[in-house]
Amino acid sequence: MPKPRIETFPNPQPRRNYLIRHVAPEFTSVCPKTGQPDFGVIEIEYVAGRLCVELKGLKFYLQSYRNRGIFYEDVVNRILDDLAAALKPRWMKVTGSFTPRGGIRSIVAAEHGRRPRT
Amino acid sequence: MPKPRIETFPNPQPRRNYLIRHVAPEFTSVCPKTGQPDFGVIEIEYVAGRLCVELKGLKFYLQSYRNRGIFYEDVVNRILDDLAAALKPRWMKVTGSFTPRGGIRSIVAAEHGRRPRT
Amino acid sequence: MPKPRIETFPNPQPRRNYLIRHVAPEFTSVCPKTGQPDFGVIEIEYVAGRLCVELKGLKFYLQSYRNRGIFYEDVVNRILDDLAAALKPRWMKVTGSFTPRGGIRSIVAAEHGRRPRT
Amino acid sequence: MPKPRIETFPNPQPRRNYLIRHVAPEFTSVCPKTGQPDFGVIEIEYVAGRLCVELKGLKFYLQSYRNRGIFYEDVVNRILDDLAAALKPRWMKVTGSFTPRGGIRSIVAAEHGRRPRT
Amino acid sequence: MPKPRIETFPNPQPRRNYLIRHVAPEFTSVCPKTGQPDFGVIEIEYVAGRLCVELKGLKFYLQSYRNRGIFYEDVVNRILDDLAAALKPRWMKVTGSFTPRGGIRSIVAAEHGRRPRT
Amino acid sequence: MPKPRIETFPNPQPRRNYLIRHVAPEFTSVCPKTGQPDFGVIEIEYVAGRLCVELKGLKFYLQSYRNRGIFYEDVVNRILDDLAAALKPRWMKVTGSFTPRGGIRSIVAAEHGRRPRT
Amino acid sequence: MPKPRIETFPNPQPRRNYLIRHVAPEFTSVCPKTGQPDFGVIEIEYVAGRLCVELKGLKFYLQSYRNRGIFYEDVVNRILDDLAAALKPRWMKVTGSFTPRGGIRSIVAAEHGRRPRT
Amino acid sequence: MPKPRIETFPNPQPRRNYLIRHVAPEFTSVCPKTGQPDFGVIEIEYVAGRLCVELKGLKFYLQSYRNRGIFYEDVVNRILDDLAAALKPRWMKVTGSFTPRGGIRSIVAAEHGRRPRT
Amino acid sequence: MPKPRIETFPNPQPRRNYLIRHVAPEFTSVCPKTGQPDFGVIEIEYVAGRLCVELKGLKFYLQSYRNRGIFYEDVVNRILDDLAAALKPRWMKVTGSFTPRGGIRSIVAAEHGRRPRT
Amino acid sequence: MPKPRIETFPNPQPRRNYLIRHVAPEFTSVCPKTGQPDFGVIEIEYVAGRLCVELKGLKFYLQSYRNRGIFYEDVVNRILDDLAAALKPRWMKVTGSFTPRGGIRSIVAAEHGRRPRT
Repeated sequence: MPKPRIETFPNPQPRRNYLIRHVAPEFTSVCPKTGQPDFGVIEIEYVAGRLCVELKGLKFYLQSYRNRGIFYEDVVNRILDDLAAALKPRWMKVTGSFTPRGGIRSIVAAEHGRRPRT
Repeated sequence: MPKPRIETFPNPQPRRNYLIRHVAPEFTSVCPKTGQPDFGVIEIEYVAGRLCVELKGLKFYLQSYRNRGIFYEDVVNRILDDLAAALKPRWMKVTGSFTPRGGIRSIVAAEHGRRPRT
Repeated sequence: MPKPRIETFPNPQPRRNYLIRHVAPEFTSVCPKTGQPDFGVIEIEYVAGRLCVELKGLKFYLQSYRNRGIFYEDVVNRILDDLAAALKPRWMKVTGSFTPRGGIRSIVAAEHGRRPRT
Repeated sequence: MPKPRIETFPNPQPRRNYLIRHVAPEFTSVCPKTGQPDFGVIEIEYVAGRLCVELKGLKFYLQSYRNRGIFYEDVVNRILDDLAAALKPRWMKVTGSFTPRGGIRSIVAAEHGRRPRT
Repeated sequence: MPKPRIETFPNPQPRRNYLIRHVAPEFTSVCPKTGQPDFGVIEIEYVAGRLCVELKGLKFYLQSYRNRGIFYEDVVNRILDDLAAALKPRWMKVTGSFTPRGGIRSIVAAEHGRRPRT
Repeated sequence: MPKPRIETFPNPQPRRNYLIRHVAPEFTSVCPKTGQPDFGVIEIEYVAGRLCVELKGLKFYLQSYRNRGIFYEDVVNRILDDLAAALKPRWMKVTGSFTPRGGIRSIVAAEHGRRPRT
Repeated sequence: MPKPRIETFPNPQPRRNYLIRHVAPEFTSVCPKTGQPDFGVIEIEYVAGRLCVELKGLKFYLQSYRNRGIFYEDVVNRILDDLAAALKPRWMKVTGSFTPRGGIRSIVAAEHGRRPRT
Repeated sequence: MPKPRIETFPNPQPRRNYLIRHVAPEFTSVCPKTGQPDFGVIEIEYVAGRLCVELKGLKFYLQSYRNRGIFYEDVVNRILDDLAAALKPRWMKVTGSFTPRGGIRSIVAAEHGRRPRT
Repeated sequence: MPKPRIETFPNPQPRRNYLIRHVAPEFTSVCPKTGQPDFGVIEIEYVAGRLCVELKGLKFYLQSYRNRGIFYEDVVNRILDDLAAALKPRWMKVTGSFTPRGGIRSIVAAEHGRRPRT
Repeated sequence: MPKPRIETFPNPQPRRNYLIRHVAPEFTSVCPKTGQPDFGVIEIEYVAGRLCVELKGLKFYLQSYRNRGIFYEDVVNRILDDLAAALKPRWMKVTGSFTPRGGIRSIVAAEHGRRPRT
């Protein structure tokens, strides 16, 4: 499945630094080691530059991980890299909170840029 | 529907910087793309200058979005702009927390001015 | 993907009617109408006859729905039919609790047989 | 706004009495006395006969109350009457839980038919 | 303060037995022994006959206890007697849940009539 | 410390069977085996006959266990016996929920008489 | 009703800056505009100087608002002014959290002095 | 490790049928298939005959499963059999709630005898 | 009852500043004004120097307040003084959270020394 | 039982400082004083250098404490030392939250290195 384009729309208030947060609890990918499905919540928080992410496209983008083998640490860093490349945000943070494997649950959080005063 | 006036009353303690927070969980507007209703909680936090916002008028003002097509990011910035223009607060923050669309819930938060020591 | 066999093991206490409940919060299938993924929790409760369901096989069985287009009502009735055929339980109930679509969340619950005194 | 048709699809398992429950937290109507918006959660629980309610149509049906003046007691009984007429369920219950007015929150629950063993 | 009249309106669906529940968390009265204020939640549940209780009048009725000295057990039974006399319900239950006094919290619940099948 | 008298007052509505529940989360006694303090919540639920228990006296009565060595099972049965003797209720239930000892928490519940329809 | 005196007792540890917090969930006053009762939680946090507030007197002081017409913003600033005048604290903060009116709940928080290191 | 004796003490109120419930959240055993540790909560509820279970002995008894390979279904039935043999209760129920394995959590509940009126 | 010694053991890692927190929800003392029992939770947080507090001795020390008349503010400062004298910690904080009296609950928190980087 | 090796894999994004957190609620060890089992939750948070910890190996490593006599303070510092030695993280924090003993629950938290900006 080819990676879907991340759709954007113009930031309606680009002169103000303000926070946008999207929480997607229906994330699933596949463990590259065991082939078993992984489940988690992806949270995206950012201060937009000229572009905002469009929600429907974000949903399709996150769905592109559904049958892909990838580690937790990699999931979070890739989503951050892809979104940062598409949106050129002033600041962005991606957090993945994954359900327990072997009794252990994991959270990975990565940031791009330095958070401006909002 | 014409935009209702934002009613105010004199700040009873203008020499003190203190926080006022109003939480309105019964907010609804319309998605400009799909025509479907959106639902959310609007939270307004501010340090008053000479004026405080009157609650009944605030309720009517928020109701004026009921049948209006507008994006989340725009909702929050407009409420902030309208209230800041009417109240001239020392500082104000507006946060909108919207119910899930396509499985993704969104939060947008914008501030006006710099928060004084309270 | 062929439907995996439901693995069983002998009921360690077949002379007693007692309850077994398995709760699987990591269920996902695909909406046959929109092609979009659905997410939910599947709960299986039963009074075993001569066989109990083996957990690892149950996990693989539930995973077989991952890329299958199927309605909520059908998911629950099929899981019930498949498990009842494999286990011949004295009684069984399957409940699916699905995350919101269009702002509406759904729960479907079906039973097989009449629950004995436990 | 004309009342939308309630869309249905054939019950996939009509020989079994099983429960279907839909919970719609994004309900809003208008108080016929004050003209103010009301907000609540509508819960629909039923045992299908030959027809199931289709979710997208149910969403549009509930949205038809958005700008309609109607009392809580009437909302619940009308939804029950409309859905019972369209689906001919073996049993149905509609519950409305409304947010506080004057500090008092209200719940109204009505049933159609007698609940079969499920 | 004279006891306010309990306002009513005609039951919109008198041929159906259905449940109406009002929850009023802002109840306060006065302890007749100590003169100290008491606080609690009053819950009224009923199956209407020909009349429903109007919410605004119910609020005023409950406010009439604000400065009245009365024991918990008496509060609940009087509200039940007054509402039953005014509404002639098929069945009614009043529950009062009061905040702790001397570290002990109290709940009193009384019913009028026999609850019909709903 | 002599056991305090359980104070009563006349049931204001003796012709009606209604429920009274008192929840006392500040109960403490002493383990007769280890001499260590025990802590728990005592809940008393009853349908009064001609007498109701007075709250202040109930508080003093429960405090009389503060430095007394007694097992959980005994605590609950004694409170039930003492209150039933003093109040002659139509029905009474006493429940004690005790904090963990050795990682195990305990609940004991005893009833007097047969609960009437309320 | 004359305003009750705020009773005090000597700070048992005046050489140490430490925090004292009292939370009073049973606050009620009257809306000066509608005459309707308001309800809320008052929280008082302070670093004492030479005096601490006595709890019983604090309760009576807060009760003096019971039948007084006053706005939320005024309630919080007056309680702060009265307590600061009586106690001369090193620092004090008063927060009022009020139940919804017109669907909107409000929080007001004011401070006196600058919080010392504790 | 030999199975520890289940210690008992005489039921202080044998003429009354009353409920005793012990909840032990610190249970661990070993999966006989994978050798991995399992974790869960064991709940024991009973109506005593002439004997009550002593808590310290119960703790040691439950600890005897710590390094023992045993399936969930077997754990619950064995604890029930052992306790029923030692206590001769009028009725007993044992429930085990185990933490997720492969994303699925399990509950097993078994009863001995028929629960008397309490 | 003489005050029990606070038992200590050597800090196993004295070269590292790390946090230790003990939470004791079973605290009770006596109000010096009314003679009535008080109940609360005591929380002790510290960075150890050369000594750590032994848990069993801490339990006995806290029990020594059981029948002692003492104000909330005094309880917290005394526990802090006693523990700081016995342990010579690099930093320590004691917090007492007490159950409601007259509807008001109280929290008192005091620190000793300046919290090091941990 | 010999201490298992801590397995690692290369950090997929070593040029970025990002947070990784693993929460293991199924930890158990043995109290060296009483021989009784202890239970708790171990949380590991770190900013990786060149290596990340592999989850399966982490599970086995934590299981190696199952039958080992060790104090809470020691558990946390040892896990930190072992993981820091194996991973050479830029920063790491280990927190242990243990279930109540003698009614007191304990939390111990230790850090290695100074947390970088993430």
